Parts: sequence; C-alpha cells; structure tokens
Amino acid sequence: MKKFLSKRAKNTGRSAIREVLKFTKQSEVISFAGGLPKPETFPSRGLAESARHQIRDNYQQSLQYGTTEGVEKFRKEMISWLSGFGMEIELENIIATNSSQQAIDLVCKAFIDPGDVIFCGLPTYLGAVQAFSAFQADNVGVPLRRDGMDLGILEKKIKEVEETGKRGKFIYIIPDFQNPTGVTLSKEKRERIVEIAEKYDLIIVEDTPYFGVRFSGKFKKPISTFDQSGRVITLTSLSKILSSGMRLAVTVGPEKLIQELVTMKQATDLCTSTTTQWIAADWLANNDLSEHLDDLHNYYRENRDAMLDEMEKTFPQSDDLTWTEPNGGLFIWVTLPEEMDAESIFQKALEENVAFVPGHHFYVDDRGKNTMRLSYSLLSTEEIREGIKRLGAVIEKELKPVSN
Amino acid sequence: MKKFLSKRAKNTGRSAIREVLKFTKQSEVISFAGGLPKPETFPSRGLAESARHQIRDNYQQSLQYGTTEGVEKFRKEMISWLSGFGMEIELENIIATNSSQQAIDLVCKAFIDPGDVIFCGLPTYLGAVQAFSAFQADNVGVPLRRDGMDLGILEKKIKEVEETGKRGKFIYIIPDFQNPTGVTLSKEKRERIVEIAEKYDLIIVEDTPYFGVRFSGKFKKPISTFDQSGRVITLTSLSKILSSGMRLAVTVGPEKLIQELVTMKQATDLCTSTTTQWIAADWLANNDLSEHLDDLHNYYRENRDAMLDEMEKTFPQSDDLTWTEPNGGLFIWVTLPEEMDAESIFQKALEENVAFVPGHHFYVDDRGKNTMRLSYSLLSTEEIREGIKRLGAVIEKELKPVSN
Repeated sequence: MKKFLSKRAKNTGRSAIREVLKFTKQSEVISFAGGLPKPETFPSRGLAESARHQIRDNYQQSLQYGTTEGVEKFRKEMISWLSGFGMEIELENIIATNSSQQAIDLVCKAFIDPGDVIFCGLPTYLGAVQAFSAFQADNVGVPLRRDGMDLGILEKKIKEVEETGKRGKFIYIIPDFQNPTGVTLSKEKRERIVEIAEKYDLIIVEDTPYFGVRFSGKFKKPISTFDQSGRVITLTSLSKILSSGMRLAVTVGPEKLIQELVTMKQATDLCTSTTTQWIAADWLANNDLSEHLDDLHNYYRENRDAMLDEMEKTFPQSDDLTWTEPNGGLFIWVTLPEEMDAESIFQKALEENVAFVPGHHFYVDDRGKNTMRLSYSLLSTEEIREGIKRLGAVIEKELKPVSN
Repeated sequence: MKKFLSKRAKNTGRSAIREVLKFTKQSEVISFAGGLPKPETFPSRGLAESARHQIRDNYQQSLQYGTTEGVEKFRKEMISWLSGFGMEIELENIIATNSSQQAIDLVCKAFIDPGDVIFCGLPTYLGAVQAFSAFQADNVGVPLRRDGMDLGILEKKIKEVEETGKRGKFIYIIPDFQNPTGVTLSKEKRERIVEIAEKYDLIIVEDTPYFGVRFSGKFKKPISTFDQSGRVITLTSLSKILSSGMRLAVTVGPEKLIQELVTMKQATDLCTSTTTQWIAADWLANNDLSEHLDDLHNYYRENRDAMLDEMEKTFPQSDDLTWTEPNGGLFIWVTLPEEMDAESIFQKALEENVAFVPGHHFYVDDRGKNTMRLSYSLLSTEEIREGIKRLGAVIEKELKPVSN
C-alpha cells in the first residue's frame, strides 16, 4: 500500500484532535474539547423554506452545474453583507468555495511548491496546518500576543527565511477571535502586517471564519481593507453563522489572485454546490441577517460570560495561570504555569468527567505543552459552570501538589 | 503575480471547452457542445420536500459538520443501490465526495508525485486531465476501440514506462458510455484490465459517472467486481441522475485505499455537505430510484435515437465517416475521414448555427483532429434533428469540395 502513496500523502496526518474527541464522547463527560457551532443558532426553519422554494421552483439552476466562480446571486448577497464592513468587492473579486478549508487548499494549490515557507501563528488552526503539510510547505510559527501575532518576531523570521534562500510565499493569519486562542489582531497590527507583506513581497491569507461571531468589543476592519498593492486574500464562511452543513464560504481578493483560485478550483471540483448556494442566497435575500446574528451573539456571549465568570471564581489564583477573554468566536485559551503539562491535566480531568484539547496540538513546533483550549459553544451555562468547577479543582490539585 | 505561482498552477489550464461554449450560447445556435444533464430529469419536487423536511426537522445533523467519510445514512443508501449491481460494499469501503471531480483530485493527492505516470484513454474526460496536470502527472494515452481501451497497447505502454524507470501509478478508465466517446468497456476487457493491473502492480481508478444512465444494451458489472487484490477504486456520482447541483458522489474501494482518501479529504474540505447528503438520503429512502431512472432513461434514449436516426439519414455515406452508438450517457462520437479538420468544420458549422466540441480537446497528445463530440442531452428531438441536418450539410460540403 505504502508504495503507492505520494510524498504528500506520507506527509499528511489525520487531525490529532479527532483522537482527543473520541475520549470525550461519553455522555457523563462535560466536554470543552469540540469546536462545533450550536446548530440551534442556525435559522433552520427559514433555510428549510428557502430550500423547498429554490429546489422546487428554481431547479433549472439550483439542481444544475454552475460556474466555478459561484452563483452570482449568492456572491452578490455576500458582497452586500461584507460591504457593510468596509470591504470593496466586485463580482470579479469573489469566489464561492466549498468551505473555508477548501479555500486554504486552493490557496496552497495555487501558490505552494514543496519547501515554500508559510508563516503562521503559534498556535494556529490545525486544519490549516494539515493543508499546508499536504502541500509539503515549510511552516514557520510566530508567537501570538494578547493583540495578535508578534509582528517583530514575524519580521525577524521572514528575514531568517530570506537568508536561507527559501521562498516565503504567504502569511496565514486568523485576525478575529483566532482558533484556538480567541485573540484578535489589533487595528495597528492590521495596518502594520500589510506593510510587512509589502516590504518582503508576501501574500497575506486572512482567514476569518468567526467574522460574523463578534458579540462584544469594537469591530475591527479586515486586513484586506488596508491593502493597497493587491496582496491580501480574505476567507470567510457561513459555517458559524448560517449552517456548517451547507459548506459555504467565500474568498475575496484582487482579481488576479482570485482567477488563479478559479483555475485550481475547476480542476478540483468544478463548482461549489449550486443547491446550497441558492438556498443561502434565498435566505439572505429574504431575512434580516443582523437580526439573526443578534440572537446568535446573545447565545455565545452568555456562554462566554458564564465560562469566564466561573473561571474567575474557581480557578486557582496565580500570576502564571492566565486566560484570554475573547470578544467573539468559540474559544478561550488557558496558559498554565510553564512547568505544568496540559496532557497530564487532560488525563486527570477525564477522570473527573471534564475534557478540553491540550494546546500543543495547535503548534507547528514543540511548544504549548502548558496550554489548553476550552470551547463554550455547545454547552448550557449550567454545564459550563459545572465543568469549569471540576477543571479548576484538577488544576488546583496539580498546581499545589499535596506534600504529605 | 507569476512569481507567487506554484509549478502546479503554472501547469494547470482552464477547460478549453469553456472557450468553445462561449461561442455557442447565442439562442439561434443549436448546440451539441455542452455536456450538462437535463434538469427536468431530476426529481425536483421530491427533492424539495426532502430538503424541507431534513433541514427543518433534522437540523442538528443536516446543518452541522459531519464526518469526513460522509453521512452514514447517505452512504448506506448508496450501498443499497450499488449492491444491486454486484458490488460488495461495507461502510469502510465508501466515502462521500463533493462530486466525482473531487474524488479524482483526492486520488491524485494520495497517489501522484510529480512525474508519476497515469494511463488514460485517448480520448478521455478533460476534467480528469486537468486534475492530473495540477498534480504534474505524466499522462500516457491509450487509444480506444469500439469495446473500450486497447489493452494490447495499454500493456505495451506500461512496459515502455517501466523501461524508462518512471513510476506508473494508476490506470484511469471510464468504463461506461465514456465521456467523450460514449463507448463501453466489454466484459472481457473488464476482467483483463484487472489482470494487467495485477501483473504490473498498478491501481485502477474506475470513473463511472454515467453508471445510472444506461438506457439500452446489456448491463456490465463494474471493473471492481473482478478485483481480487484490492486495487480498484470506483467513482460514481448522483450528478447525472439526481442533481448536478448537489455535488454528491461516492468513491468505493478497498478500506486501505479509502482511508488514504479520507486523510486527504480531511485536509481538503473537512467533509462533504451534510445538508445535501441528508436531502439525497431522504429522497433515496422514500422514493423508487429505479422508477425515476426509467423516466430519465426514456428521455435520453429518445434523444439518442433521434440523433442516430437523423445522422443515418443525413450524414454523407463514407467508410471513413463513422460514429459510436452509445447505450447510455450523453455523448456520440464522430470520426471524420483522417484528412478532415474538425476545427474547420466547427467554424463552418457555427455559420450555420450548429455547434459541437472538436474532439482534439479530449486528447492528451496531438491526435483527434478529425473527431467531434456531440451531446444529445439538453435538446428536444426536433432540435436534434434540425441540428444534425445542418451539421450533415456542412460535413457533406467539406467532404466533397466543389471542384468548379
């Protein structure tokens, strides 16, 4: 079997989180491990009506192949939504993709040769790293701060890569409520990272799947709005706000870059489902997205508040034990004292029927052993509080080992 | 811009047929060029009801992420359909993909390194060649006969490749009503090609998107049913029988090979749309597929009959002018006398408001200049007859140039 495999395939692993999740499926376990959105936050009744209408009355389009670029009406609805955030988008600047994950795949397909360098966060989204590995990219990690990627270190790393003669291709960054940490890139850094990309002639891949899930704090314009030289590609998705199952996302960028993605997509799957695009377009045209998002935000905000409040109450006090306070998205990130091992905490937490993802999984190097990702997306506030109590007790015990 | 591109991207072109199609969009043109199925053959009302029900009442699954392997209920429905054709399939042997085109992409991802050899038909499906090129494969073409690929030449080519030291990875073959020629691989050749793959240790990628569109002739079991050594992967799709817009296909094969595709798919798009999988599963569970296919077959059979009948009547008589008589699928393939140029016929046909695809587009080498692909899928029988009359007249004129 192995003899048939491409180098690429030998280089690509399955998601390690999948293995973690296996342990957390028992019903008595309160799991902060998963990262799925709450299906109750999706407008299922409205989508059901849109689906019936579009499939029955518009079958000539909604059941037929479409263009690789995507259904025009769907793209126009997305443009109309994104324009509200300062993005200037024409039809030539937007392609519908079968999820943002596919957009990451297409970006790699278009731009990455084996050995090319991608700069990414430390930690970063695991699915992106899997895609990068599948294209045999060389992933260079850049630590995150409270206001996002450390741009001083980014520039240093870029220079180091230049000196080795390797080809840096793009910076992969999740600017809003990053998975896994929940941190958001500051406005100043959004401007600065574009300058850095210009200076060193790199593309920026701005991946913002949680864009619509901001439930507090001040809105920050996408990195692409600061782009003057046509080098920023923005990926955003409906998977967290309308439906994950429809697998609908859009990629926005300069026409030349988008055209390359179209060429790669044609060879990859011809087109994104016209059925789901027409359903989403119909729903977006006939419903108030911001009203819908208000409800969705209330749900996630309450859950975040419950988690932060209970952490404050029950986690042991220590300068070395810190966590992020996200303004959106689905995750809180905990940094334990340096000497602590989140894998060992994970084992002990499981015994107490509470679970999370040990943070080292999200690192492209061997750091992060003392970190944990907690998701508040799927649980009730009562479950969140109970789970945090249990987890706090486990950490407390580990932090101050009984000396007798 | 070019400096950012991967070698792969530089190696991948857009579909040339797209350019052909541009010329054929005017309403007065009778076009045999396209290859789309007729949306009226899809069960739109039933799918609309399935969609409403699944999205409204099963939103926790139909709007949520699913496993990379695909929705179990959908895969079981597909197993149940395919079992009727002699295929033995367990859940571990089947993965849902976002169209068969994606399955081709995943197969390449898993098995093709730059320079690896893929053996394919001469001519063959253009979308496959695009995918192969995107993975920098070396495509080696093998001529087709009336009963499918010439296996004597296939074996000769395999030996030649072995001698050059290159790595042959798989044989790509479309056994049923092949796009573009409409020819079907004989039973004897189905058995024989498996023997050849065993002898030379190759994988067979059996791509049969028109599997469900057999409207005449004797059913032939898939190549995979002759596989004893776990080396055949079968791709089939709902795009021609239930809906192209849902982008639903399945890949069936030995568990070890399927597992590699699952790994690659996870990094590519996480999972196929659960929304469309649940819609299709619901429709398949509550409707009679074979009854539906009877109607669909009647439609395509009538169109094929009209086209063949009119060709017989109006195409000039010549031993060097031949065409295929497909038992299914959407295409008839015309071979003109050796010295004729289908591109020149195409230009003259356009002047008479009739269009087709010049056949050389489907060749991985420079052959096929005297061939044409005609599709009967989208037109009424009246339009087909009128178009064939016009085309016959153009060919007649070219075949016997006026000497005065």
